[in-house]
Amino acid sequence: MLVVMQAQATEEQVRAVCKKIEAHGLRPHSIPGAQRTAIGITGNQGLVEIGLEEMPGVQEVIQVSKPYKLVSRDVKQDNTVIRFSAPKGGEIGIGGTELAIIAGPCSVESREQAFAIAECVHRAGVRFFRAGAYKPRTSPYSFQGLGLEGLQILAEIRERYGLKIVTEAIDHESLDLVEEHADVIQIGARNMQNFSLLKRAGRAKKPVLLKRGIAATLEEFLMAAEYVMSEGNYNIILCERGVRTFVDHSRNTLDLSVVPAVQRLSHLPIIVDPSHGTGQRTKVTPLSRAAIAVGADGLIVEVHNDPDRALSDGPQSLYPDQFEELMSELRQIASVLHRSIPPQSAQSQRPQTAAVR
Amino acid sequence: MLVVMQAQATEEQVRAVCKKIEAHGLRPHSIPGAQRTAIGITGNQGLVEIGLEEMPGVQEVIQVSKPYKLVSRDVKQDNTVIRFSAPKGGEIGIGGTELAIIAGPCSVESREQAFAIAECVHRAGVRFFRAGAYKPRTSPYSFQGLGLEGLQILAEIRERYGLKIVTEAIDHESLDLVEEHADVIQIGARNMQNFSLLKRAGRAKKPVLLKRGIAATLEEFLMAAEYVMSEGNYNIILCERGVRTFVDHSRNTLDLSVVPAVQRLSHLPIIVDPSHGTGQRTKVTPLSRAAIAVGADGLIVEVHNDPDRALSDGPQSLYPDQFEELMSELRQIASVLHRSIPPQSAQSQRPQTAAVR
Amino acid sequence: MLVVMQAQATEEQVRAVCKKIEAHGLRPHSIPGAQRTAIGITGNQGLVEIGLEEMPGVQEVIQVSKPYKLVSRDVKQDNTVIRFSAPKGGEIGIGGTELAIIAGPCSVESREQAFAIAECVHRAGVRFFRAGAYKPRTSPYSFQGLGLEGLQILAEIRERYGLKIVTEAIDHESLDLVEEHADVIQIGARNMQNFSLLKRAGRAKKPVLLKRGIAATLEEFLMAAEYVMSEGNYNIILCERGVRTFVDHSRNTLDLSVVPAVQRLSHLPIIVDPSHGTGQRTKVTPLSRAAIAVGADGLIVEVHNDPDRALSDGPQSLYPDQFEELMSELRQIASVLHRSIPPQSAQSQRPQTAAVR
Amino acid sequence: MLVVMQAQATEEQVRAVCKKIEAHGLRPHSIPGAQRTAIGITGNQGLVEIGLEEMPGVQEVIQVSKPYKLVSRDVKQDNTVIRFSAPKGGEIGIGGTELAIIAGPCSVESREQAFAIAECVHRAGVRFFRAGAYKPRTSPYSFQGLGLEGLQILAEIRERYGLKIVTEAIDHESLDLVEEHADVIQIGARNMQNFSLLKRAGRAKKPVLLKRGIAATLEEFLMAAEYVMSEGNYNIILCERGVRTFVDHSRNTLDLSVVPAVQRLSHLPIIVDPSHGTGQRTKVTPLSRAAIAVGADGLIVEVHNDPDRALSDGPQSLYPDQFEELMSELRQIASVLHRSIPPQSAQSQRPQTAAVR
Repeated sequence: MLVVMQAQATEEQVRAVCKKIEAHGLRPHSIPGAQRTAIGITGNQGLVEIGLEEMPGVQEVIQVSKPYKLVSRDVKQDNTVIRFSAPKGGEIGIGGTELAIIAGPCSVESREQAFAIAECVHRAGVRFFRAGAYKPRTSPYSFQGLGLEGLQILAEIRERYGLKIVTEAIDHESLDLVEEHADVIQIGARNMQNFSLLKRAGRAKKPVLLKRGIAATLEEFLMAAEYVMSEGNYNIILCERGVRTFVDHSRNTLDLSVVPAVQRLSHLPIIVDPSHGTGQRTKVTPLSRAAIAVGADGLIVEVHNDPDRALSDGPQSLYPDQFEELMSELRQIASVLHRSIPPQSAQSQRPQTAAVR
Repeated sequence: MLVVMQAQATEEQVRAVCKKIEAHGLRPHSIPGAQRTAIGITGNQGLVEIGLEEMPGVQEVIQVSKPYKLVSRDVKQDNTVIRFSAPKGGEIGIGGTELAIIAGPCSVESREQAFAIAECVHRAGVRFFRAGAYKPRTSPYSFQGLGLEGLQILAEIRERYGLKIVTEAIDHESLDLVEEHADVIQIGARNMQNFSLLKRAGRAKKPVLLKRGIAATLEEFLMAAEYVMSEGNYNIILCERGVRTFVDHSRNTLDLSVVPAVQRLSHLPIIVDPSHGTGQRTKVTPLSRAAIAVGADGLIVEVHNDPDRALSDGPQSLYPDQFEELMSELRQIASVLHRSIPPQSAQSQRPQTAAVR
Repeated sequence: MLVVMQAQATEEQVRAVCKKIEAHGLRPHSIPGAQRTAIGITGNQGLVEIGLEEMPGVQEVIQVSKPYKLVSRDVKQDNTVIRFSAPKGGEIGIGGTELAIIAGPCSVESREQAFAIAECVHRAGVRFFRAGAYKPRTSPYSFQGLGLEGLQILAEIRERYGLKIVTEAIDHESLDLVEEHADVIQIGARNMQNFSLLKRAGRAKKPVLLKRGIAATLEEFLMAAEYVMSEGNYNIILCERGVRTFVDHSRNTLDLSVVPAVQRLSHLPIIVDPSHGTGQRTKVTPLSRAAIAVGADGLIVEVHNDPDRALSDGPQSLYPDQFEELMSELRQIASVLHRSIPPQSAQSQRPQTAAVR
Repeated sequence: MLVVMQAQATEEQVRAVCKKIEAHGLRPHSIPGAQRTAIGITGNQGLVEIGLEEMPGVQEVIQVSKPYKLVSRDVKQDNTVIRFSAPKGGEIGIGGTELAIIAGPCSVESREQAFAIAECVHRAGVRFFRAGAYKPRTSPYSFQGLGLEGLQILAEIRERYGLKIVTEAIDHESLDLVEEHADVIQIGARNMQNFSLLKRAGRAKKPVLLKRGIAATLEEFLMAAEYVMSEGNYNIILCERGVRTFVDHSRNTLDLSVVPAVQRLSHLPIIVDPSHGTGQRTKVTPLSRAAIAVGADGLIVEVHNDPDRALSDGPQSLYPDQFEELMSELRQIASVLHRSIPPQSAQSQRPQTAAVR
């Protein structure tokens, strides 16, 4: 174990940490450096229990044998910001001050549906459009997505609205096509440890949105990102989307504590998916607020103009007016954390295509 | 199953629900009432899948065989507000517009410690002081609390600062004493299904703060409250404090989705404990923000003037200055949800007794 | 960490362990003793990963900071056998070569029901009768047991059949009565961390059957036993009864791996409850076989003469003829592990009172 | 819901079920058939609670909306037996009376290692050899398998010992090669919902060994098999290998209750992997016995001639002599369930290459 002190830590603080280590029967080895002091520890493990992380002057407590490298803040201290050229010049970033709200339907069902929803999320201030063309479904008999046709519709939406396209790839073949047509390649929760696909994504030229597996530990999640990075693609957005527990009042249990945990260990941005994380529309709004309040770098949220007739995931999709209201709340909460969400776009009359609730 | 329509639901909305029920091979039975229409369903279960809850005009979908009664919104539609007389006249409530922030150390360790912390949380605008006199500890060899002496110190703190006292009872004997000395009787997570203790709490004259068991389902949690209410004590504050999952980056997994789930089913107030819910100081602040953003009625949070020397739970206790900063953020988030937190008290200079971080 | 070598470990084996420790960047400290060598390790934690436990000559790898003492094999190497005087002279033991099969209904419902079931389990070779007089029920509106009247019926059964009585205590008051009337005091899963009740059980003169809490780690389970032992009662039978997981095809997930895990760390006997562990009659028989095959010291299993009309837990109770068949299978499996189960009693005609399936 | 009565169920039993349904406020619809009576139920869901499954004369309670078809016993009542031609004529089957023991190292590390282990498992009476040529590893920096070279070594082993080869495919490319060189294509837990790979396996000419995902429900597990079958490959062996829970004393929690649960719903054979299911050698033996006792159709178990130097999963691999002893115990337990395991082969002297423990 290694305790890394802050650059400005005082000698007294270093001594206090050493003393606490000794008080627990362990041996501290002070290692002064050019910029900051590190303290090696020998003797045993119960360090979380000792609470060194919380002492004044301490920057981080590192398990020396940490298996991930490239994803780690040890390698890169500053936050990674994934950058995209903005439609009218300038840049959009994920991981910077501006929060990334990625919105759209679960699946592209038709050109009309996709455009209607794109219209309304664009109007609400959204810059990233999500919609699946390839759907991993539990049953082989369920709707599996429009495939290439879906991707082409999404590409049209980018042209029309300047929205960046986020869509899932489920195998090598679809990844080739997604890489060609979309702006961000999504790897779904079920494929988080499909290492063959991760490596392929690591050779792609587009950023990767990597969802946490339904039972993935933090370490496994970061190691999946390491797979992508180890092939050369450094542009990864992590995404918490709920884990599987005994809890039966929501489809999954959204683990918001993973957000500060990731931010401590890794420089990569992390966003939250409250739609899959809860599975119920009535919980999407409160958990979206919570995700921004906990410090996530953005959301990926399902919005549908007619959820009751959606081909997939209707019950967890927001109505357009619910989404607009949510965006307004999120802007206020973001500002408490000194972050921002783009305003509604100019022509902000209510969408004509959206269902009235 | 019973679908309860909103009072203002239109006939068209009722028909739409019936049609959807039929489309799933089930049979709807419309039951018009004086104020609102209900729709009985026969045929089968997959209702969550049908997504009726999310349709326009639908108020609630009720499982007819729901085992809880008194805790349910079926019995009492309006939110329960637990009321206390304010020190300078007027009232304080838990479950109303003003959020309840309950703060203090894990344990009363000494008169000095307790007063120092009470001083600083009072100054920060807190109205409820928490501190354990009886501690349920995993090991029989750990500090078990000061007992009656601790309760007497807490009673002095109430006198001095006008803070309402929240403290845990662990058996019949300690409950007698807590009922006498404190304002709110806390039942801990480990005792959530100690039915004998719940019944005793149900005969107490003081409100009960009931923590969710570490592996309790929503139904078990509500049934525990039902035990208390079935004995005549209707003043219950529910508290989410994290559940046990495979996740290993925080001590427990804070299940914020239980907040909207409780609010849908029950009229009782629900607060969140981010300290036990995470077990790590660095996660307490972000998860506290998230808990308020999700819509909880308050927080119970550990604050200590000298966490590094605390006899219990030091690593999850906030420093006084961290807590003040948190309160300031929470006030802003509360206002987004049209709720409030009392301001800092007049003599708002920084506490002299608090450790400098 | 401390690696304890077997008494007969060779010097070569000690060197191999030291070498492996060094190969992982840690430092071994060989500590030769009168009977066996121990190897202290300094440097770090990942020892489970190193796999020292599995090396030739290694007896055990000990976390020095293990919080339990009296339950540990460090303190007492030999298995604890809980002894009872047999009805016709001699002794019955739990934890010895003979397996303890504890059988009977969930609750005492009436004198007739209890005697009918006692008759049939006695005939099947059972020596311990289980039946609840005090029932911890999730709902305050469910049948809560016959109380003292139930205990008196159980005492009569002991007189008549020579069966030892195992029954649950749920608070101090019922524990007083159970201690007086029964042979083994059961502490249920919901009370595994009711420390006040554990301490009272620790002052009782009768052995304690301690069920694992639904989300208890091995350490918490052993610490609960430590609470009882720390008050002076050393006669504890541990019981695995299923843990709560995401799995939805059985009521709980029976964790049979806890049996060898307990046996490695503790000298206390451990039995398995396949009835609560699965919640379904069709799974009780296969999981009972598995529990004996894994090496448990016995079973506690629900048998009912008329499960369809049982007041509690009918669906998980075996019919008498199923139970007899199970006993026959268990005897054969027990013999593979060099253990035994008493034979059917002499008057082995089929029970007249039992329902025919 | 549909209650299917046994063919020989009496009218009285049918009436008893109907009466019980009515007693729970539901409506039974008796549907007499040529061979057996079914009872449709309308009204609600709580059927598991009603306990109909356990009533005399009841064969099965079916959720009408069950999403799987081809894997279901509704479609095919008799057990599926996967058949292979035996080396010296005749047939070997998985799912029949003879249990399938699949043994070998985690990975093929070298020709020498693979042959040494094959020699000893063959001698112990094993007919299926397991060893990975393609390894899905959590870290991109870990040993990833010998690939095609490994497959060629395995093909040689088949030639030499007549062992059937079971090895994992991790993507389309490796599946092509595994299909060519091996006898059974293993799909690992991490790929259980890699639907693209499942479909490819469904078009393969060789049987598929499908491992349960680490957090897969029974329904998801069966749906994964349905994916394979929906493409035309009906030869599937299911495999329980432990699920992820809060439990920390074993790497995963082996869910043996899934064995009877699968056997009730599906005609496919199911085996158990105690090596990954526990992660610790000392638990592999007891849990292997338990798996056979619970009624599994076989085991897949790791054996290594020199586990301490294994390139992967050493700590969970059995030593050759431990494995021989285990086989002997398993034969005895199998016979209790009227099943068998092949005897040791003739030349049963102890292996010279195996390490002495």
